Amino acid sequence: MRITTVGLDADDTLWHNETIFRLTHERFVALLADHADPATLEARLAETEQRNLRLYGYGIKGFTLSMIETAMELTGGEAPASVVREILAAGREMLGHPVETLPGVDEALALLSDSYRLILITKGDLLDQERKLAASGLGDLFAAVEIVSEKNRGTYDRIFARHGTGADEAIMAGNSMKSDVLPALEAGAFAVHIPYAITWAHELADAPADHRRYGKLDSIDQLPGWIASRSRTAA
Amino acid sequence: MRITTVGLDADDTLWHNETIFRLTHERFVALLADHADPATLEARLAETEQRNLRLYGYGIKGFTLSMIETAMELTGGEAPASVVREILAAGREMLGHPVETLPGVDEALALLSDSYRLILITKGDLLDQERKLAASGLGDLFAAVEIVSEKNRGTYDRIFARHGTGADEAIMAGNSMKSDVLPALEAGAFAVHIPYAITWAHELADAPADHRRYGKLDSIDQLPGWIASRSRTAA
Repeated sequence: MRITTVGLDADDTLWHNETIFRLTHERFVALLADHADPATLEARLAETEQRNLRLYGYGIKGFTLSMIETAMELTGGEAPASVVREILAAGREMLGHPVETLPGVDEALALLSDSYRLILITKGDLLDQERKLAASGLGDLFAAVEIVSEKNRGTYDRIFARHGTGADEAIMAGNSMKSDVLPALEAGAFAVHIPYAITWAHELADAPADHRRYGKLDSIDQLPGWIASRSRTAA
Repeated sequence: MRITTVGLDADDTLWHNETIFRLTHERFVALLADHADPATLEARLAETEQRNLRLYGYGIKGFTLSMIETAMELTGGEAPASVVREILAAGREMLGHPVETLPGVDEALALLSDSYRLILITKGDLLDQERKLAASGLGDLFAAVEIVSEKNRGTYDRIFARHGTGADEAIMAGNSMKSDVLPALEAGAFAVHIPYAITWAHELADAPADHRRYGKLDSIDQLPGWIASRSRTAA
């Protein structure tokens, strides 16, 4: 079995992301502390986000709009202007947040790019993801960058056909079981789950029961070895 | 001279868009009528939008956030909750607005797709542009869809190399002199300007002085003929 192409998720796989969302959640909860308890605030925000996904898609702009909407709902439509201003500011700060790559990412990608075609495959806001990739300094290692509205089987079929030699000779690595691992396996690719410290509830899913093309790693620095061993042995 | 590939802009080239933005502008002006005159409101909103482009990029989500920010600025930071709620609702309605293709688009694209590789090249929010393309019923006519954060020379170089036979054998058609015509000409492609009834100030630019690969058309139904004539004669 040959592997020619390595797809990599971006947020929480190459650099910290969910921690930044969590900080903003905490800020949101503090802002509205007079109106509801933290658990209620978190639950309502999650509901709004989930409901708005089909309209806003993924990313910080939609998240900011969902925070404002939730603030309105929790205050009977009368959120103070100061709360709205704070939420706008929080969204802007997220969009300007420095990019901090995860431990081992630079070395692992440098190594992988010697032998494989690397493709960045990520959801989120177009401009924001491009900004983060540029700020990460990793841009030159990728043969292609695909910012997509959803990650499903068709997404991986299309991307690995366009930029590689098909899903059969590709592997996807990322922190989301739901978006990175399961649909890539469905498409016929290898897939490796590298969990991040925190997972957004929306991205949770069960691991595949027993799949020869699936692996779970503690850290991205184990990825080059995992791929090398699979590339040699039969799948 | 051979033309193999036709790039087409989406908003205000294939379907109405700026008219929907104008309606929302009017709604915004009415909402804040007590705080400033229409000209001031429009000018401040345009300033906010322009300032936020590097952060939000193009599209309705960023526009909605810019409307809320402008409302805050024009009310000394004290915009009523009802104004914020109305702006959120206006943004949501824009994202759900029916897609109405411009006259002649279906016929022109059907004709062009018989002889050329069609590529949709558009800015805006990822999910929103995909939604509009799906709703337009034109999706199957395109060999590729590229939703980009900016349209410059490099964008056209890259896209026409990836999906076609290079910019030299490609043409770009769209309603924006600044985004569709000038950078495509710079990349070495043909470019045709098909103005829409209204142009967003941000997209205004002078026409090229005297360029053999440039054309201006009144309607997209003249595009197949224009391309056929150029394809036969030398450039």
